This record gives sequence, structure tokens and C-alpha cells, in this order.
Amino acid sequence: MIKTFGAKGLSSYANRGMTLEADLGATNEYYLVNDIAVIYKKPTPITISKVNYPSRVEAVIKEGYFRTPSTTDYNGVYKGKYIDFEAKETKSKTSFPLSNIHKHQIEHLKRIYSHGGIGFLIVRFTVLNKTFLLTYEALSDFLDNTSRKSIPLSYFEESGYIIKDKYNPRVDYISVLNTLYFGGSK
Amino acid sequence: MIKTFGAKGLSSYANRGMTLEADLGATNEYYLVNDIAVIYKKPTPITISKVNYPSRVEAVIKEGYFRTPSTTDYNGVYKGKYIDFEAKETKSKTSFPLSNIHKHQIEHLKRIYSHGGIGFLIVRFTVLNKTFLLTYEALSDFLDNTSRKSIPLSYFEESGYIIKDKYNPRVDYISVLNTLYFGGSK
Repeated sequence: MIKTFGAKGLSSYANRGMTLEADLGATNEYYLVNDIAVIYKKPTPITISKVNYPSRVEAVIKEGYFRTPSTTDYNGVYKGKYIDFEAKETKSKTSFPLSNIHKHQIEHLKRIYSHGGIGFLIVRFTVLNKTFLLTYEALSDFLDNTSRKSIPLSYFEESGYIIKDKYNPRVDYISVLNTLYFGGSK
Repeated sequence: MIKTFGAKGLSSYANRGMTLEADLGATNEYYLVNDIAVIYKKPTPITISKVNYPSRVEAVIKEGYFRTPSTTDYNGVYKGKYIDFEAKETKSKTSFPLSNIHKHQIEHLKRIYSHGGIGFLIVRFTVLNKTFLLTYEALSDFLDNTSRKSIPLSYFEESGYIIKDKYNPRVDYISVLNTLYFGGSK
């Protein structure tokens, strides 16, 4: 269930139909290897209730449960700044259901913003093959001004930033951050 | 195995003999609740090999293994800066064995430093009841100039910073960071 992905270049590029998580894994690996940024996906939080120790060195978890995460999935550092985001896919062609994001994840992004970090969502409309970056500020504006339970695609097109599908890195969200927060330099 | 801790004030303070992890949990909770910083311990990385779905909503992990972490345990944001550290206890009265820190965790801290983040170790000598903050810079100096397999207590006393035992927050490492990186302001 938990996978790791390398920056395999052509072979990865050829493998269309990868999930957003896999694409971000390869992208973050690319940033790491090329010394651009240090950003990791956090491990899935699990409550462990039973562990066996068949040998001195190896422990086997025999019972555990998935917990609701209290933060977003991805964080790290880019040019000294704290970076924090959640990534989600939707099969919808028209809107992104807010039920995909936990309330405390939005609260977490709000805290990140108020402490001077850079917080955002990456949302992929899989059927349309479009991936957007939506800053916390734009998300917050949306939530403050509507009671809708989903964010329409048009809001992403107007207030978000498209992340172009690239060869490598595949989901180059740092280039969007450069435009937004670092004076367009790369 | 995975615990969460609240900022309980007096009752927590009275409970001496808490682990460093528990103290840091309470400290980070204090920082969060008091809007000082947003710093979390990452979940323990686990590779899941078997999951049962007894009902639609609940998944039970039936087999999993602990993985070696590729990063440090704690990270987050303080005054816009990226914060990253590893925390360890030792029962030794004289030195901290470097075998307690994985090589790739040191490489991770090096990357954090080179990308403008603030990276450090928090080490507690449990028998002496002394807790130190050692910056990545000081750690790196030590590693560059010796082949010793442990860092002597004297090095922590000379090149590290003691984190005073307090009422609340219990392990106030932010006050050390203020002195070191934020012009002493609190």
C-alpha cells in the first residue's frame, strides 16, 4: 500500500495513467536528486495495537488501524521557506468535492499560512488530465464566500494555476511557486 | 505504540520520568495551541503487506513492517522558516553514541541546512536529566574533525545549547532557536 518511486525518466514518462501520488513521488525525488528542494510525503498515520517479535531484529505488526491525518500529506523546504500541501485526485469533470479534504487539514493550511509558510492544494481532474495548484489564500477566499460543497473547475481555471504535464519533473509545482512567491526565478 | 499528548499543564509537569518523545509531544502541542509554531512528529513509516476489510468503513492492518526512516522525526514551520530535527535519548552519562542516528538522517539534515532550513538534534542524557540542542553546523563540525563513534557530553556543553527544564512548555527548544536565529526575540 505504501510505495516508493524513483526518478526513472523515460520509462516513468512512458507509463501514463500513473496516480498523482506516484507522479508527486517521482517529482519530489527529482527535486531531491537535483538539489532543488527537499520535500517528502509523510508516512500514513497508523495506530498499532499488536506487534510480534519473531526474532530480536524483526518486528511484525499483526494488528493496526489507519488514523485520520491531522496534517497534510506533503511538506518540506524550498529556498529556506516552509512548503506544505495536500494532493487529491477527482474523477469529476466539473468540480472538486470538498469532502475530499478533512476540515482539520484546511485548519492546518490556515496555520501554515499565518506562520509564514507556503500552503496549497494540488488537485488533479483525472478524466480531463488537468492538474492545478490552488493556494491556501484562494481556497480560503472560496470557503469564505460560498457554502458550496465542491469547488467548480472554473474556480481552478480562474484562481488556480495549471501545472503543466512535463517530461521530468512530471508535476513541476515548484515552477508555479517560483512565479507566485520567488519573483519568477527558477 | 503511537501516543498523542495534550498540553495538560500541572498534571503533566508533575509526571516526571516522561520520555523525551512525550515531552516534545506536549511542547509541540503547547506551541500549536498558543499559536507559536506548527511542528509535528511524523508518523512511523510502515510497509503494509496485508489489510482486511471487515466492513466498508473500517480497514484492519493484519501484517506490516517498520521501515527505516529516510528523514528525521520532527518538522514544521516557525516564523516562516523550515524547522527540522531528530530527538534522541541516551542512558550514557558521558557521551551520545552516533549509532543512534541513521546516516541518511544526517544527510537529510545536511540537505535541510543547504536549502536554508534550520536543522538540529535534541539529545537528552536521561540519567543526568540534561537536554541539549545541537545545531547541524555543530554536528557537522564534529563529524568532520573526528572519527569517534560517540559525541562526548563535553562537546554538547561547549558547542550545544542546554534546553532548560521548564513548567510549560517542557522542552522549550524554540527559545534556543530565538537566541540562535531570530535575534533573541521571543
